[in-house]
Amino acid sequence: MSCYSRSEKNREAFAQQIGCRAAKSYTELLRDPEVEGVLITTPNDAHTAPILEAAEKGKHVYVDKPIAHTIAEAIKIDHGCREAGVILSVGHSARRLRGSRKIKEILEQGDIGKLVMAECNFSNDRSLELTPDKWRWYKDKSPGGPLIQLAVHHADTLHYLFGPVRNVSAMAKRLYTPAEIEDVTMTILEMASGQLCYIGSNWASQGTFYTYVYGMDANLYFTVDFNFWHRSEVVDQHSRLEIQHRGSSEHKPIALSQGDMFREELEEFAECIREKKRPEVGGPEAIAALAVVHAAIRSAETRQTVDVREVMDG
Amino acid sequence: MSCYSRSEKNREAFAQQIGCRAAKSYTELLRDPEVEGVLITTPNDAHTAPILEAAEKGKHVYVDKPIAHTIAEAIKIDHGCREAGVILSVGHSARRLRGSRKIKEILEQGDIGKLVMAECNFSNDRSLELTPDKWRWYKDKSPGGPLIQLAVHHADTLHYLFGPVRNVSAMAKRLYTPAEIEDVTMTILEMASGQLCYIGSNWASQGTFYTYVYGMDANLYFTVDFNFWHRSEVVDQHSRLEIQHRGSSEHKPIALSQGDMFREELEEFAECIREKKRPEVGGPEAIAALAVVHAAIRSAETRQTVDVREVMDG
Repeated sequence: MSCYSRSEKNREAFAQQIGCRAAKSYTELLRDPEVEGVLITTPNDAHTAPILEAAEKGKHVYVDKPIAHTIAEAIKIDHGCREAGVILSVGHSARRLRGSRKIKEILEQGDIGKLVMAECNFSNDRSLELTPDKWRWYKDKSPGGPLIQLAVHHADTLHYLFGPVRNVSAMAKRLYTPAEIEDVTMTILEMASGQLCYIGSNWASQGTFYTYVYGMDANLYFTVDFNFWHRSEVVDQHSRLEIQHRGSSEHKPIALSQGDMFREELEEFAECIREKKRPEVGGPEAIAALAVVHAAIRSAETRQTVDVREVMDG
Repeated sequence: MSCYSRSEKNREAFAQQIGCRAAKSYTELLRDPEVEGVLITTPNDAHTAPILEAAEKGKHVYVDKPIAHTIAEAIKIDHGCREAGVILSVGHSARRLRGSRKIKEILEQGDIGKLVMAECNFSNDRSLELTPDKWRWYKDKSPGGPLIQLAVHHADTLHYLFGPVRNVSAMAKRLYTPAEIEDVTMTILEMASGQLCYIGSNWASQGTFYTYVYGMDANLYFTVDFNFWHRSEVVDQHSRLEIQHRGSSEHKPIALSQGDMFREELEEFAECIREKKRPEVGGPEAIAALAVVHAAIRSAETRQTVDVREVMDG
């Protein structure tokens, strides 16, 4: 196991903390025969070069979500990994929350009847702390602000639950952030299956995460306590999934087991390498989620509904 | 006190139940010198004629929401009542829920900080029961379906809480209703003050009513148990208002008193007649809420963001 960061201090500290080697350059790390796969955690707009370099050296790749900051870069990454025959796994953790998994299970069992609509929100107040030395400050590096950093999770989970998105209509505003990016966004998605979904996402109010699913026979209410978002080993205990059947006032709790969304992603990556399997979220899934973000950005700019295919075509 | 319905059976039964006279025609009712004001509960597209007739006879008017089915009719009604010098009061009850009143009070005290966004939903499954003999079946009588019957409440309450709406972007679908109208709708509102609000409204899943308000310092979550919506004397006891402060996981309940939204409307109407006061929701407020509905319908049709002024101009 080996690590690399441009900052010598950071990589030495990380190596010591994890108990791994620290490479003096990224190329040196990629030359390490023991390394089978790499985890890329660079800023969104700096994914392509290290991924393509790894792929060329035959190393499998895990990259944090979103796959890239633009569709063009995302497609380059996906193609590069395919051509090199390496696995590309993208960290859309939210679908791995136990609540998301349980919703999928309930939908497959048909327990809430036909889907009427779904509503989600993922927000936190991080844009208020941004300063010009942070890459997330800039529109060209972090287009859409909370759309690409937060809403993209729901875009992936909604696709996982209900299939692909056809059209997107959105509004986005810059209200309170000192940065260049928008901080308050609302997006309506028309799914290929016909239903409508909504994603609210802002970067100015406290941490919020919910997914509500309205069916003809029952509604599901899934809420995560955002204060535990980064503590994936306990986050499911701080989540709540409830079902309300038609005609009843009761919100009945549905028990959730304790998973670990971040650990599961990495274990799946290792398993895919060992067993030459396709990861659950590869290039196509990650590009689909990013396309929703870019369709929302374009819709907010043009004040028109945007067909997701238009965004894919560039 | 007197009542009139085209059905003799209905008006006799109502007269007996309430203990009032039953007029043989609407004109006879309007000639009754004891009658100072009339309550109009005809279908949406049949408001104008009885209102204008009442106004000409100098009778004050209370009409159930929405003020009318089109903006043109709404303007005719408002002008007619003004010219005749009679009071026009429109039954947008949702702003009179104790939870809505409390949110307004909290906003005025500045307790949640600056507004970031608001999200609402008002849905029920009534469109599934529609048959061609019901006026709500038809697009020309009930344009927008759940938009004009349900979402219009939130349009009024959002205006009451945050001021006028500037732009509207919406999608609307006909998924499950046997009727002509759409049954699943999502609408994004850009307020003149700059913030974004969302209204979800469908006519195919069970009764749902909530208003969430996201501030920079705290969020408010207001939920009404729809099963008690029509029992206005107890509905506030079946409502929940919670505040979550920034950084805290706790949703702290805020106590609500028991009001009576329907009774309050009628008592206010009587008081306005006695004391020659303006009602809280008159023509301009009701037209503003209806304009949001028609902007949403136009936006869904044209796939473009619609300026509310365009709809007002016809």
